[in-house]
Amino acid sequence: MLAGAAIGRLAIVAGSGQLPMRLAEAAREAGHTPFVLPIIGAADQDWSGFAHADLAIADLASFAAITRREEISHAVLSGGIARRPGLGEFRPTWRMIPAVPRIFRALVSGGDDAVLRSVIGLLESVGVKVVGAHEVVPGLLATGGPLGAVSPDAAACRDIAAAARAALELGRLDIGQGAISVGGRVIALEGLEGTDDMLARVARLRAEGRLPAGRRGVLVKLCKPMQDMRADLPSIGPGTVENAGRAGLAGIAVEAGRALVLDRDALIAAADRAGIFVSGIDPADLAP
Amino acid sequence: MLAGAAIGRLAIVAGSGQLPMRLAEAAREAGHTPFVLPIIGAADQDWSGFAHADLAIADLASFAAITRREEISHAVLSGGIARRPGLGEFRPTWRMIPAVPRIFRALVSGGDDAVLRSVIGLLESVGVKVVGAHEVVPGLLATGGPLGAVSPDAAACRDIAAAARAALELGRLDIGQGAISVGGRVIALEGLEGTDDMLARVARLRAEGRLPAGRRGVLVKLCKPMQDMRADLPSIGPGTVENAGRAGLAGIAVEAGRALVLDRDALIAAADRAGIFVSGIDPADLAP
Repeated sequence: MLAGAAIGRLAIVAGSGQLPMRLAEAAREAGHTPFVLPIIGAADQDWSGFAHADLAIADLASFAAITRREEISHAVLSGGIARRPGLGEFRPTWRMIPAVPRIFRALVSGGDDAVLRSVIGLLESVGVKVVGAHEVVPGLLATGGPLGAVSPDAAACRDIAAAARAALELGRLDIGQGAISVGGRVIALEGLEGTDDMLARVARLRAEGRLPAGRRGVLVKLCKPMQDMRADLPSIGPGTVENAGRAGLAGIAVEAGRALVLDRDALIAAADRAGIFVSGIDPADLAP
Repeated sequence: MLAGAAIGRLAIVAGSGQLPMRLAEAAREAGHTPFVLPIIGAADQDWSGFAHADLAIADLASFAAITRREEISHAVLSGGIARRPGLGEFRPTWRMIPAVPRIFRALVSGGDDAVLRSVIGLLESVGVKVVGAHEVVPGLLATGGPLGAVSPDAAACRDIAAAARAALELGRLDIGQGAISVGGRVIALEGLEGTDDMLARVARLRAEGRLPAGRRGVLVKLCKPMQDMRADLPSIGPGTVENAGRAGLAGIAVEAGRALVLDRDALIAAADRAGIFVSGIDPADLAP
């Protein structure tokens, strides 16, 4: 854990969703004075309570200027960026220009991990150290075992194993992190659309009677095997639990130690209310 | 090819979509006098022009009675069955009863292939030989190379390779057959929702600006590595081409010799009109 006093000022680069605000609040509680960089067109929170400066998605020159001015030493990337920047949007610093062709290639055809590695490299080239959200906020990582009152039963354990196998394979291909199994059979895989969209799809399949009656199913989200822990860790929040409930699932399993649990108290309350489990698992335990 | 004269009467077990009707018409042209068994709740065609008898989804006793009465020797399974039957819907013949626990297990937790193998086994236990659609209708299988006027360019070939790799992996896991790559990056994987639903999802991602501008992409559908050629071959029709156009894709690649091309003339006309390619590929050529 990086204590507030031990490092210079912390920047939070904010995309969409709940994570950036939770992170900023928790960082403040942990003794940091975070400076927030909401990405224009992605960030969808009200940052009036925090020192902040809006940033265009690929404006690295401004990033360099702001971090120098604010004496920022560390940065956390958090939240979603739905859209990759077009090549014309890049504003590199002069020193970055040699690296531009490589990042362009990654942006156009790389998986999320390739892009993130490039972005982290560019941000660090101006002298800012990029760290993981879990390094500045205690207790954000999923722990092993059930988080709430409900535990997976035998059918759910079979679904966990089936969906985890598919999710690992997706991760190995750097495509996605999530899969849903119902009755031991994988029926949905997460691509660019994201977890909530996939859960909505399963709710629709359920309503259309296309899932076996009486079989609930499980959502599994795992880290990609080679994933950089500094960005894009799989995450769940109270909304994920509510959507899983709407899809008729029995529960959610995420990778213990390598997935973020946002708003843990509200998430556990939502899970207990819906009668579904949320469990931290170790994919190594599921190997065939 | 099974000539009409060489076998007894042909049954066509009809699910949803275009395939059953095309198949029945083509079988008639090839000299057969097909008897159609539309599955209640799945078949959505007008069968008044053909001898037919509606069949409840898991009514194997009636299947046995009808095939005996109509002197049916061969059957083709065609079209979609969106819903797996509930266990209470089964009407086995007396002789099938020992096999029932096995099919129940397959229905509840098997992939599509496991279910199909069980279904084929049950149908054949009453003395009917189940054959593939391509065995009774000439020219239904995709051939190698471009079908219409457009050929894949270099960017499309990269997308074909990326999506084919993902589709093969999905097939190996017995999950699905289709994947879409845009700009060399796999962004959607087909689960139970089907190809048209996946294409609609990509059209939505495109409209939301979440795909890289100027990158079109490719849909690839492949056979599962162990797939039984007698059922559920990947298929495309004019509607697939139209939906691919709406998703902004550059084209479609299917497995040559192991995918069905429905309504080929209309499909080629639609592809040429939309300026997209439809190609038969050999996945072995794409190995890294």
